[in-house]
Amino acid sequence: MAGEAPGMTGASSSQIHLPLGFSFSAVPAGIKASGRPDLALVECAPGTTAAALFTKNRVVAAPVEVDRKFLAKSHGHVRAVIVNSGNANCATGQPGIRNCERVCFEVARILKTRPEEIFPSSTGIIGVPLPTEKIVAKLGELISARAASGAAVLELASAIMTTDTRPKIASARFQTNDGSVNLLGVAKGSGMIHPNLATMLVYAFSDVSAKAADLKRLLRNACGETFNCMSVDGDTSTNDTVLLMASGESGADLSQCEKRFGQALLEVCGSLCEQIVSDGEGIQHVVQLGIEQAKSRTEAVQVARTIAHSLLVKTAWAGADPNWGRILAAVGRSGIPVDPAKINIFIGEQNVCQRGLSVVFDAEKAHAEMSKPAYAIRVQLGRGKAAIKYLTTDLTAEYVRINADYST
Amino acid sequence: MAGEAPGMTGASSSQIHLPLGFSFSAVPAGIKASGRPDLALVECAPGTTAAALFTKNRVVAAPVEVDRKFLAKSHGHVRAVIVNSGNANCATGQPGIRNCERVCFEVARILKTRPEEIFPSSTGIIGVPLPTEKIVAKLGELISARAASGAAVLELASAIMTTDTRPKIASARFQTNDGSVNLLGVAKGSGMIHPNLATMLVYAFSDVSAKAADLKRLLRNACGETFNCMSVDGDTSTNDTVLLMASGESGADLSQCEKRFGQALLEVCGSLCEQIVSDGEGIQHVVQLGIEQAKSRTEAVQVARTIAHSLLVKTAWAGADPNWGRILAAVGRSGIPVDPAKINIFIGEQNVCQRGLSVVFDAEKAHAEMSKPAYAIRVQLGRGKAAIKYLTTDLTAEYVRINADYST
Repeated sequence: MAGEAPGMTGASSSQIHLPLGFSFSAVPAGIKASGRPDLALVECAPGTTAAALFTKNRVVAAPVEVDRKFLAKSHGHVRAVIVNSGNANCATGQPGIRNCERVCFEVARILKTRPEEIFPSSTGIIGVPLPTEKIVAKLGELISARAASGAAVLELASAIMTTDTRPKIASARFQTNDGSVNLLGVAKGSGMIHPNLATMLVYAFSDVSAKAADLKRLLRNACGETFNCMSVDGDTSTNDTVLLMASGESGADLSQCEKRFGQALLEVCGSLCEQIVSDGEGIQHVVQLGIEQAKSRTEAVQVARTIAHSLLVKTAWAGADPNWGRILAAVGRSGIPVDPAKINIFIGEQNVCQRGLSVVFDAEKAHAEMSKPAYAIRVQLGRGKAAIKYLTTDLTAEYVRINADYST
Repeated sequence: MAGEAPGMTGASSSQIHLPLGFSFSAVPAGIKASGRPDLALVECAPGTTAAALFTKNRVVAAPVEVDRKFLAKSHGHVRAVIVNSGNANCATGQPGIRNCERVCFEVARILKTRPEEIFPSSTGIIGVPLPTEKIVAKLGELISARAASGAAVLELASAIMTTDTRPKIASARFQTNDGSVNLLGVAKGSGMIHPNLATMLVYAFSDVSAKAADLKRLLRNACGETFNCMSVDGDTSTNDTVLLMASGESGADLSQCEKRFGQALLEVCGSLCEQIVSDGEGIQHVVQLGIEQAKSRTEAVQVARTIAHSLLVKTAWAGADPNWGRILAAVGRSGIPVDPAKINIFIGEQNVCQRGLSVVFDAEKAHAEMSKPAYAIRVQLGRGKAAIKYLTTDLTAEYVRINADYST
């Protein structure tokens, strides 16, 4: 049987391809002042394997340290994910670690499993002790409420939001000889553009059967092309986490469908990326930055990041200003030994800089292109054959206002 | 005779310590639409030696290429500096080089000297051909108008301004057994915070007698501690230039006063730095960022740059928000293998983060400190004994408005 193309969905729960072997729930635990749901759980079928990637920041939150320890101890097995919003449990020292473990022990006790099979996450304000008692008091209710439904997935996606304006969900399904395989992704965050170090958390659930090591390899690959190729403001959170789980409940084994699974994972992660970037606070434009003719992927990413982090470039984008000189100058200081005389720049379909020099172009047309909510800019380096796509945004006065807000 | 301490001055021409052997002039040449003076000249005594440092951007403007070639050919001798504002002569290809050389040839012809002893600079919009004929037509008038006076220095400092709001001048004088040595610095720019890649240009004039190689060494040293330790927005212009000249007219030789000269140069460059940073558009606060207990200067600069370029940090500063978590997170992603448990952060005199953890501090007092136009933040890394001071600014909505302005 030929597999169908993975179908991407937005945040509407009616379209979710629900993987077998996972149930979801969320409750308000009083961590957020708003009283909204801020504590969520995912229970996973026995035998569920898992692989995770974490922030590269040297300053990491307590749950990230606990996750690393537990995943190693359980050899990549997870029976439950417990996430709170409203508090990042970061810069909280040894008491932060103890608080995090305390929550995991309680979840394990109720679910009658081992603590190292619990995967904790936290997101929110840093430097404030985790309100452990509030969390522990709600665990019984949280665990009882779990359900394997689209509505419950939406509850999870909503409960992990901090300053996100909408829940972020994507899913895919494909057929194999051994049945359908479902992949579901839930995310929060806006690439660190939010106040108080708001974090990117991504959870991907699948019912394929897979070894943890294979999941890690596929996850690394997908992240390289998606979450590591996006930037809103260049900051890296202390809590960033991407977790991929496989329950095996579909009956299909990864070894029989690795290519299609990898493609589905890439599409789910790609969709979550777009949802994250376009939800950036104060953002007016999403720019798909294509870096072409690089010597290597690494070099292309370095050029993309330099452009995407340039304040002069980002503010020109906010004004829909086809000021290609700022892009050229950012390429020039990227650390890659480019030859300016080989650089071409395109805004939409228009060539605005050829071999490092000004060319006659329709500035009004370029301005109109850049006034769209999303558009593409391509930079050709004339050095090789590597190419990447990098998602980024403009920088608006609204972003500054939001992040400069002094709240005490 | 003991030397007196170098006296720093602001932009008032009455306080300028004028070095012997230089005369200055400026005229409007119609390059700027405003009709303000946009073409300036400095004539230097025969035998004047010179050393220059240029932008590290791979994309460089035509005058930078010509300067490098001419300084090599003249073995570090300069008879005149010719600067225009309103046009950067960048991304203009071979015609840009020819236009720049044409201007130098004309200046050399009128001054009866060799073209390679002319030092050209340009600043302004990029990608637009230099209006060479307008410049050449004004050279006679410009050269006739030259004068060795404070007023003429102020004319130079004003004519090289683009979006600067005030001219930037600093000077120093010290006594030697062979007479007074004067050092004068004139600068423009705001660390690339301005539209159209506005550039930093710095000219330092002295009447000491010195070899070009010695000037280069002292200039590198002074720049390392001043212009390379400041940042407004992290962008690097295609035209950045720092030029140090020595006419020898004071009668004093550098070999007899190198330490005092180095100190005077550091103070003049430091003052120009402060003037540049505090003139950043939209800037509300100048932050003197102290990085202490680093293993090396290089590592301290890397940490300082990561903090100074973090949008989350800069926007918190705009709101006078003592959100030290953003600073800690920026240190964590700086690429230096810091141990968060050894990091201390101070806002003014207050310790706000101790060993990577929250400490009780007076948030209102910290907010008041951060509401001042200028204040200090110190970060101790607990790794070694190196320390630097790095000048930077907040990021305001006004900055975004200025740089997002679409002008066609």
